[in-house]
Amino acid sequence: MNVRYFMPTRVFIGPGCVKANAPRFSSLGSSALVMTGRSSARLNGSAGDVRAALESLGIRYRFYEEIEPNPTIADCRKAAGVAREFEADFVIGIGGGSPLDAAKATALLARNDLVDSAIFANSYPKPALPIVAVPTTAGTGSEVTQFSILTNDSITSKSSIAWDGIFPSIALLDAAYTESLPRAVTVNTALDALSHAIEGYLANKSDPMSRTLALESMGVICRSLRRLEGASIAREVREDLLFASNMAGMVIAQTFTTAVHGMGYSLTYFRHIDHGRANGLLLGAYLAFIARDFPKPVAEVLSACGAPSLAALRDLLDGVLGERESIGEDEIARFSSLAIKTGHIANTMKTPTEGDLAAIYRESFR
Amino acid sequence: MNVRYFMPTRVFIGPGCVKANAPRFSSLGSSALVMTGRSSARLNGSAGDVRAALESLGIRYRFYEEIEPNPTIADCRKAAGVAREFEADFVIGIGGGSPLDAAKATALLARNDLVDSAIFANSYPKPALPIVAVPTTAGTGSEVTQFSILTNDSITSKSSIAWDGIFPSIALLDAAYTESLPRAVTVNTALDALSHAIEGYLANKSDPMSRTLALESMGVICRSLRRLEGASIAREVREDLLFASNMAGMVIAQTFTTAVHGMGYSLTYFRHIDHGRANGLLLGAYLAFIARDFPKPVAEVLSACGAPSLAALRDLLDGVLGERESIGEDEIARFSSLAIKTGHIANTMKTPTEGDLAAIYRESFR
Repeated sequence: MNVRYFMPTRVFIGPGCVKANAPRFSSLGSSALVMTGRSSARLNGSAGDVRAALESLGIRYRFYEEIEPNPTIADCRKAAGVAREFEADFVIGIGGGSPLDAAKATALLARNDLVDSAIFANSYPKPALPIVAVPTTAGTGSEVTQFSILTNDSITSKSSIAWDGIFPSIALLDAAYTESLPRAVTVNTALDALSHAIEGYLANKSDPMSRTLALESMGVICRSLRRLEGASIAREVREDLLFASNMAGMVIAQTFTTAVHGMGYSLTYFRHIDHGRANGLLLGAYLAFIARDFPKPVAEVLSACGAPSLAALRDLLDGVLGERESIGEDEIARFSSLAIKTGHIANTMKTPTEGDLAAIYRESFR
Repeated sequence: MNVRYFMPTRVFIGPGCVKANAPRFSSLGSSALVMTGRSSARLNGSAGDVRAALESLGIRYRFYEEIEPNPTIADCRKAAGVAREFEADFVIGIGGGSPLDAAKATALLARNDLVDSAIFANSYPKPALPIVAVPTTAGTGSEVTQFSILTNDSITSKSSIAWDGIFPSIALLDAAYTESLPRAVTVNTALDALSHAIEGYLANKSDPMSRTLALESMGVICRSLRRLEGASIAREVREDLLFASNMAGMVIAQTFTTAVHGMGYSLTYFRHIDHGRANGLLLGAYLAFIARDFPKPVAEVLSACGAPSLAALRDLLDGVLGERESIGEDEIARFSSLAIKTGHIANTMKTPTEGDLAAIYRESFR
């Protein structure tokens, strides 16, 4: 048996957790750059709670509200310039995966002057600024990972920083901030978290510790997906999803992700399909591909998901995904040739060929 | 839902993990005090592996091999004096709970000059020295906790340091070091770990994250206890126990322990019953006590333990415990009056009265 485990973030999940734990901000410094998207953090109350906390503690702060979905290297360079100019001691990211990942890269770049090719080296001269993560979606798990995923135009895809120095110091998760999410965002982010748990369970880097967390996470997510019917989403379901996405983040911090993520990036980069949805679209065919050689772990996934068969899990996914996009054979060829070059392939339990990837794309969009 | 999670130790479990991960020692400093018990670390190979690693890295080191079971405050003061004199940058603890807990207290005292009453304040002027933990029993979980439990003669019991500053930086767990353990030690330490998992699951401080780890841990331990029959113990069982005890340590780092630990300390202090065995002796009656008001969580424990009933779990415990010690009514009264004053009581799902504690002692030793 081999196990590796490291996840040094202080995690607090619960109603009012920002206010209750804000005094911990003072241990990180006396000035903060607060990074959010254009509006959601203001609307869901998270930005107001963070602002009130910073003011009550006498911490200088500047809000930087320009983070777009799928942030680029240039976006983070710009924010890092602001952090330096403001002399920020730490960075607070509020939002979905985009502001959180941007905050992590900004915390790195604020202290390290790096050319583009050095950004993904995962070894840097100086420590990053400390990071506080306040997720307002239940999907990314970024609040408990060492990853920052940035759009990298030089490879027409996304690239990952994977460096222990950008684990957030503190993660604060209040399901109240997810109340105002549109249903589609709730579904897509839940699918992202489900993909983290399932990919983590089936990753070559998985071990008994990460598999324990992964099984629990996927169970909670699938139970929650079944409760998304009806006009409104119960607070309890939102709490469950936030908790499970956090646990799935802890999983991929150990296991990394696999072919699904490597394949999904093209769907987001070229076709602008939401990241979580992209993973969700691919999951069924991916599981069928793995199951052909490794039926036992896939059966364990299905059992944890409360699905009597792979067909039943695919039905559940189909139900929440709705109508699928269509993609052409030319796109399949191009996306497969990009995905086969990613590090995700070697972490996939059954190593796919480029032809296998094409077949998974084809099956996912037929 | 409320969840708190923090466990910043880098954990490596597996054959050869000391050698494979020793280069990380260099990040902790250039001189190490290595703390062990009188002989077992030399016999089981762990001390030799650590010595070889330190030599290969050019790290100055001094072995301090005087840690007795159930270390006292005075023991740790003496070791801290050696650490200061040697100008140790970090402390390596090798062994069971006693050397590991002593190493943690020594790392604290080497940097902080504290009167006895300040040692358990859980707030100190200076950070502790970094700590490396190399457990050679599968029970304590100390390698992933913020606890150091010391014999405290001023209260005729044990007292706990519970401070985030003594989480080990690195934990290295190689089941090879547990190969030479006598069967009784294997059983007793497994019972300690089982008690951590079960108490953690039923603690007032438990939450969905810690409960996930606790259920998996108790399942692995009970499966392993059933495989302790026969002349030798399979390596796979030892690996499972080491992994499960580590996970149970992660549990109590979040949940702390409950009445069982509070009660067990008197059995160790006054009757010299091994710590893990003391917990194991009390577990059955404790579960019966909790189940009277909280049958559901106890049923969940039993299910995870693969026990069709509480009686079945008690049979399993009886089988590994063998003949029980006897204790007198005077001892029961004295131990109950000590245990009721501990912080463990308020963390127990069903708050026991002093009379309840006496009844649990009585039932455990009848």
